[in-house]
Amino acid sequence: MTDYVSMINDTLGKYIVKAYPEIIYEAMEYSLKAGGKRMRPRLMLHTAEGFGGSAQSVMPFACALEFIHTYSLIHDDLPCMDDDDLRRGVPTNHKVYGEAMALLAGDALLNSAYEIMAGECLGNCSQQTVSAMYEIAFSAGTGGMIGGQVVDIISEDKKIDESTLLYIHKNKTAAIITAAFAAGAILSGADSISVKRLKEAAGYFGTAFQIKDDILDVKSTTEILGKPVGSDAKNAKTTYVSMYGLEKAEKDFIELSEKSLAIIRHLALKTDSLENYMAELMKRIF
Amino acid sequence: MTDYVSMINDTLGKYIVKAYPEIIYEAMEYSLKAGGKRMRPRLMLHTAEGFGGSAQSVMPFACALEFIHTYSLIHDDLPCMDDDDLRRGVPTNHKVYGEAMALLAGDALLNSAYEIMAGECLGNCSQQTVSAMYEIAFSAGTGGMIGGQVVDIISEDKKIDESTLLYIHKNKTAAIITAAFAAGAILSGADSISVKRLKEAAGYFGTAFQIKDDILDVKSTTEILGKPVGSDAKNAKTTYVSMYGLEKAEKDFIELSEKSLAIIRHLALKTDSLENYMAELMKRIF
Repeated sequence: MTDYVSMINDTLGKYIVKAYPEIIYEAMEYSLKAGGKRMRPRLMLHTAEGFGGSAQSVMPFACALEFIHTYSLIHDDLPCMDDDDLRRGVPTNHKVYGEAMALLAGDALLNSAYEIMAGECLGNCSQQTVSAMYEIAFSAGTGGMIGGQVVDIISEDKKIDESTLLYIHKNKTAAIITAAFAAGAILSGADSISVKRLKEAAGYFGTAFQIKDDILDVKSTTEILGKPVGSDAKNAKTTYVSMYGLEKAEKDFIELSEKSLAIIRHLALKTDSLENYMAELMKRIF
Repeated sequence: MTDYVSMINDTLGKYIVKAYPEIIYEAMEYSLKAGGKRMRPRLMLHTAEGFGGSAQSVMPFACALEFIHTYSLIHDDLPCMDDDDLRRGVPTNHKVYGEAMALLAGDALLNSAYEIMAGECLGNCSQQTVSAMYEIAFSAGTGGMIGGQVVDIISEDKKIDESTLLYIHKNKTAAIITAAFAAGAILSGADSISVKRLKEAAGYFGTAFQIKDDILDVKSTTEILGKPVGSDAKNAKTTYVSMYGLEKAEKDFIELSEKSLAIIRHLALKTDSLENYMAELMKRIF
């Protein structure tokens, strides 16, 4: 399986071309470089590989998705949101650059994602490039990630029901993962039925991934996670674990993981790198 | 001259399709509807008219630009930025919806602008639509509006030099106005030389417009402006007036206005609605 991490990191770096005023590029770069598994771009690249696409043509969209993911983390960490001091083991953006610059660095990363994608569409104006951009824009918006963040915020300090928790997981986490699968496939010429099946797999996978996060917050350590554990309980936050208990959370995690992998296997992709990477991400630590 | 304001307002409303979670759509709509002259979309529509384009095909991009302008106002008003309580005579977004929701409403408006434009590019995949989107994305980014906001923020409580002040004016205000002209022309099939000349005119016009704003902050009243006057002096902010004095500010405003109008006249557009609208916007109140 090609290890795309260093390719992604190199390309992310190239998209930050420092100019006046340098401080904004530094703030953007700080959070882009602060660790991260590059899960979303890697999922997109492995999906593209599975449909015979080239990493070259997908990379700009993969980087744009990482820009969007990073902006969402910076804004999520702000004092008016989750008010977090640490992210991936290092101080959050506003702790280093101040709130105003962190706000603008988030805005800039979001906008830059579209500058990158629009630039790609300009160089290669096709239904595929435009469609990939549209999938990403939709998933990042109020019908996807932002919708999930909104419900997360308005649910704070409240007892929420199952459908609300599922909405948050599906939108705050799974939406961008869905875009990674869909864009990678579309850019590689996948037919619409395959894209539809992939989105279904991404929905299961994204939810499983969020459940794993909830489980780790109970069972892991700050050293392993690079962020404080037990923060959900401290913030009286409803999680999959607090709603269903650890046992059912672990059971559902396995079930959803296997459902998503079954769909991927059924698509009989050209390589098994996507399946392998998904399996690696869902490796159980319990 | 066709009055595009009600067309723009109707279309802006149609792009806010309320769904769960309703609060985010309400917060977006609140700031979109809170007055505003719709200057940027109107400039785009009049430019399109001048090149024989239809309002129909330009309207989605004109609305997207207004979404971007509105997001920038919401984020600018936040406590960590300018900390303003009033905008266009009504409470600012965070005063009504709280800081977290205002932050997300801004993010959502920015992202929705790209959802609208990507959707248009999908329905009509052409070099023109994609190029218009690219112009807007570039102008809204770190090489345009965000760059201007950054320098504005880091210049607070500091004595700044002429080139810094010009950078702020050119980027914070003129960049989005430039995108309005450029996108309107590109979508209507203008040749690249005309687009280049238009951008030059937009640069003069945008700077003149900002100088007028600085003049009004000294000479107007809160009732007329719908926002507190004298706020620049109160915040010890360097403006065109504080740097050059009122007399030179007024002289330069007239000179830049006339330079921009001269370029527009020289382009010999199909209608004079753009020229008339620009003249109306630059009507002197002194």
